[in-house]
Amino acid sequence: MPLSPEQEAEIADQRGQSQQTLRAVAPGMEDHLYTAYPVLDHGFVRVIDYMGDDAAICQAARVSYGKGTKSVSNDEGLIRYLMRHWHSTPFEMCEIKLHVKLPVFVARQWIRHRTANVNEYSARYSILDREFYIPAPEHVAAQSTVNNQGRGAPLEGAEAARVLEILKADSARAYDNYEAMISDEGQQGLARELARMNLPANIYTQWYWKVDLHNLFHFLRLRADAHAQYEIRVYADEICKLVADWVPFAYRAFEDYRMGGATLSATALDCIRRMVKGEEVTQESSGMSKGEWREFMGVMG
Amino acid sequence: MPLSPEQEAEIADQRGQSQQTLRAVAPGMEDHLYTAYPVLDHGFVRVIDYMGDDAAICQAARVSYGKGTKSVSNDEGLIRYLMRHWHSTPFEMCEIKLHVKLPVFVARQWIRHRTANVNEYSARYSILDREFYIPAPEHVAAQSTVNNQGRGAPLEGAEAARVLEILKADSARAYDNYEAMISDEGQQGLARELARMNLPANIYTQWYWKVDLHNLFHFLRLRADAHAQYEIRVYADEICKLVADWVPFAYRAFEDYRMGGATLSATALDCIRRMVKGEEVTQESSGMSKGEWREFMGVMG
Amino acid sequence: MPLSPEQEAEIADQRGQSQQTLRAVAPGMEDHLYTAYPVLDHGFVRVIDYMGDDAAICQAARVSYGKGTKSVSNDEGLIRYLMRHWHSTPFEMCEIKLHVKLPVFVARQWIRHRTANVNEYSARYSILDREFYIPAPEHVAAQSTVNNQGRGAPLEGAEAARVLEILKADSARAYDNYEAMISDEGQQGLARELARMNLPANIYTQWYWKVDLHNLFHFLRLRADAHAQYEIRVYADEICKLVADWVPFAYRAFEDYRMGGATLSATALDCIRRMVKGEEVTQESSGMSKGEWREFMGVMG
Amino acid sequence: MPLSPEQEAEIADQRGQSQQTLRAVAPGMEDHLYTAYPVLDHGFVRVIDYMGDDAAICQAARVSYGKGTKSVSNDEGLIRYLMRHWHSTPFEMCEIKLHVKLPVFVARQWIRHRTANVNEYSARYSILDREFYIPAPEHVAAQSTVNNQGRGAPLEGAEAARVLEILKADSARAYDNYEAMISDEGQQGLARELARMNLPANIYTQWYWKVDLHNLFHFLRLRADAHAQYEIRVYADEICKLVADWVPFAYRAFEDYRMGGATLSATALDCIRRMVKGEEVTQESSGMSKGEWREFMGVMG
Repeated sequence: MPLSPEQEAEIADQRGQSQQTLRAVAPGMEDHLYTAYPVLDHGFVRVIDYMGDDAAICQAARVSYGKGTKSVSNDEGLIRYLMRHWHSTPFEMCEIKLHVKLPVFVARQWIRHRTANVNEYSARYSILDREFYIPAPEHVAAQSTVNNQGRGAPLEGAEAARVLEILKADSARAYDNYEAMISDEGQQGLARELARMNLPANIYTQWYWKVDLHNLFHFLRLRADAHAQYEIRVYADEICKLVADWVPFAYRAFEDYRMGGATLSATALDCIRRMVKGEEVTQESSGMSKGEWREFMGVMG
Repeated sequence: MPLSPEQEAEIADQRGQSQQTLRAVAPGMEDHLYTAYPVLDHGFVRVIDYMGDDAAICQAARVSYGKGTKSVSNDEGLIRYLMRHWHSTPFEMCEIKLHVKLPVFVARQWIRHRTANVNEYSARYSILDREFYIPAPEHVAAQSTVNNQGRGAPLEGAEAARVLEILKADSARAYDNYEAMISDEGQQGLARELARMNLPANIYTQWYWKVDLHNLFHFLRLRADAHAQYEIRVYADEICKLVADWVPFAYRAFEDYRMGGATLSATALDCIRRMVKGEEVTQESSGMSKGEWREFMGVMG
Repeated sequence: MPLSPEQEAEIADQRGQSQQTLRAVAPGMEDHLYTAYPVLDHGFVRVIDYMGDDAAICQAARVSYGKGTKSVSNDEGLIRYLMRHWHSTPFEMCEIKLHVKLPVFVARQWIRHRTANVNEYSARYSILDREFYIPAPEHVAAQSTVNNQGRGAPLEGAEAARVLEILKADSARAYDNYEAMISDEGQQGLARELARMNLPANIYTQWYWKVDLHNLFHFLRLRADAHAQYEIRVYADEICKLVADWVPFAYRAFEDYRMGGATLSATALDCIRRMVKGEEVTQESSGMSKGEWREFMGVMG
Repeated sequence: MPLSPEQEAEIADQRGQSQQTLRAVAPGMEDHLYTAYPVLDHGFVRVIDYMGDDAAICQAARVSYGKGTKSVSNDEGLIRYLMRHWHSTPFEMCEIKLHVKLPVFVARQWIRHRTANVNEYSARYSILDREFYIPAPEHVAAQSTVNNQGRGAPLEGAEAARVLEILKADSARAYDNYEAMISDEGQQGLARELARMNLPANIYTQWYWKVDLHNLFHFLRLRADAHAQYEIRVYADEICKLVADWVPFAYRAFEDYRMGGATLSATALDCIRRMVKGEEVTQESSGMSKGEWREFMGVMG
């Protein structure tokens, strides 16, 4: 993650300017503000701003005049109740703003989460930097043979090396040509909005992304999941750590009820009831398809 | 606006607890935090939290590493440019959370603005207070004769007095009966979720309402407009004052380009071009219907 | 559900006018179009329009050029897969438009589902009808003693009779006074936008409500649930029947994975694994609170 | 726009299967259904489904039991009134579903319109086709010298030729290498979700895109605007033609009040009033910045 000295100075400057506020302050988050946490080879996540804390969730749920806190244990119980019963609106009362640097193909997945605010670096207006995601060798993996939209084991050495060679060479050539086309030395220079089309999807972009806690949890449940593509999962994992420090009660409830939990079908619940009674249930007697049964076995450990 | 001594103490308590933060701080908004500003006879608006300031709008528009401020005049120019060209996403980077107490019929209009987060006081769970909106005599107005969905001049004394008498008597009786039905003295007591249906639309409710600045401006443009119903307009007017102190550049641009501006049709623009050339344009020669022409004349002063 | 003869004639007229279309047609839904299905004492639900069918879900999931149907069994399998894995966007490709007549206090709950399009009958512009929801005696229930936001057993005869008497009398008086205030006989007549505030929350309103299938399923899961208030649940139940005829595969998957299913926490899954192994698990050894355990026991039957 | 014979057959098949429906039918749209209208060198737009027509807008605005049509002229007047007064909800009652094939860099702009439903062809799951957008020579333009985010005049012959050569060669090489990496001949084959990152932003993708008429108009106002990038504008232009045939009254109102209209600031309105009175107003005396004045002069013709 190459931050320029100017960028590092700007971040240090922001971290140096403490002010007074009457708003709710989350000490765990103040520690993270502005700092760029590296993700992948050139990416990062950094918190630009946040609104609210665990108490703010309770305050809104109670529509209270003051802090809404009766007691700390009381607050955690309420938050667990809200999470368990899908009362999502109190979680919407917290908000976070992130600055993220990420490859374009990751950005394309990410943006599908519509309930968020986004300002992306404009390649119509500005020139993109020469920064491309090149996977670490252990993440250069084969197409999965069991999951049509996933990856399997890492490629063997020679094949992995060929892949990395291609990715590096094509990125470099594409960028050289991008620069050549927009250059106004001895020529007019192609419009940036056109030249960008030559750049591959592993080039880095960046954006400001603002989202409420409920929708962030939804994002994290899907993107920190084991089935998410590795390259977006590492961003979700990094954000999980930040959220755990920001709203510890809410994050713990999220871990228990969402990340670590599972939604079971009526058929699956019926199987469980039979199994608890001592009945031996097989895929054939379960009423599930093979795929469902395999996933169910995964949940049952 | 009858706040109980406990509520006033809670608010004073919140205003007394200043903390350090590294986040952007809007001094104009710190002054308003938590204070309940009266609206109508029992309502209020108070700011619970906010995120961002004028500089945060520019910072997001520039996807910058630091504060995003080049210079103050530069920032105002950028904000005006963004507003003029409908670049709405940078304004979405600011967020505000309000606690509002308002009559139910106002809440029903307000909630139609969908892009916001809401936690309303639950009349399934809790007992509503005996507080009803009774208009001041000067706002007891006749049905408009020119606008089917508006009001005209204030009613004359005797008729206004009858109306006020009815509103007060019916509110009081409805609430007496509400209390009688839910009481568990000498009877079981009707479920709150049922009893509430006896209460009229002028009873007060309250909610936490959180919205980004772009969507707040949209709300204000429609609800602070002269055609909005008076009882929601006074809330919008109060919020306008708060926003003016929070993000002064953005608010000034909003006033110039939205509140004080007008959207003119192709037909209207054509008329203006002819008028500037000295042509006398009438409704007949304008190509507009009578209604459009009347509105156009209103814009032309 | 008192439809006027004119309204019945308009509905019959719409049902009599069949036309040719090249669009996807859901035969099960064509049978329901326009017909008003009664709900509560004066309410109804009727389908005004729909877009798509089961095949359209698959077509979008496959981004296909033609119908997207490989085979019927194939389609149902795909739909179950999409539902199981929370792939919600293909379900968003179906849309339904309903005309609903419902009490205001039900409308206030309903409108909290924001991802939908709504046009409500305007009481600023028009005069509301004299129609109020008065519960059937068996639904006049006491406040629940175990659930703070629910109802318990029906009230006993005398108390129920008192409640019904109050609801009827207060509704009638409120409406009489509403009419008296807006009347322009011998007086100016109060503006409708003001007079409406005298009407209680059991008066009926109506709206056009349009929503995509994914968001409709979310609404139905929450509102057809046993914990939803009876007066909104009956609307959800009626809509469930319509959806079952519209998109039978999707509805069946929804019943299995959502309505009949359950989301279990990591803690609950751990308990299940222990129980299947033959361990006796109690609330004390479960790691759950009493409330969670009671709900868990409910799921385990 | 190279449709395969199979795709053409599927489209012809869909256009050949007419069925009876009781729903609102828009004859102008039936003529367009399924047909792929070419855009750019390999792209297209085709209508997959639609809901509603001009009458449906009025029907919803009136919350009516029947068709909602009083008379045709009455309907057009109502639609113009709704458009003029920003009553957007009745327009949300119409919905359209499109199948669009478009370059990735266009898709990235398009997706920023969040209030829509999207299913995109998955390059994690499937292999992308070898189809790249290569601009026609007259659209290979220089960076604008007056607008930092736009393009100016076409490049001269030799420079344009160089650009086209680069775009073609880099696209071809990138795709060759994409194929080489995913191939499982004599090697394992790289996962598709990784290989796609080598592909440039001018490769074509495709999606199903569903949106309501209000949000479609918002999209068209921004993207059919002269300042939009040419490559997305041609899609918007093509959709405009379809909408004009679908809801002719609404489209006409949109053209007059939105596309052909302009939003003027309070300052600009003040200048116009002075100009109509015969005063000579200059940039200096206008109160506008140079940029604003230039835009204002553009509006004034």
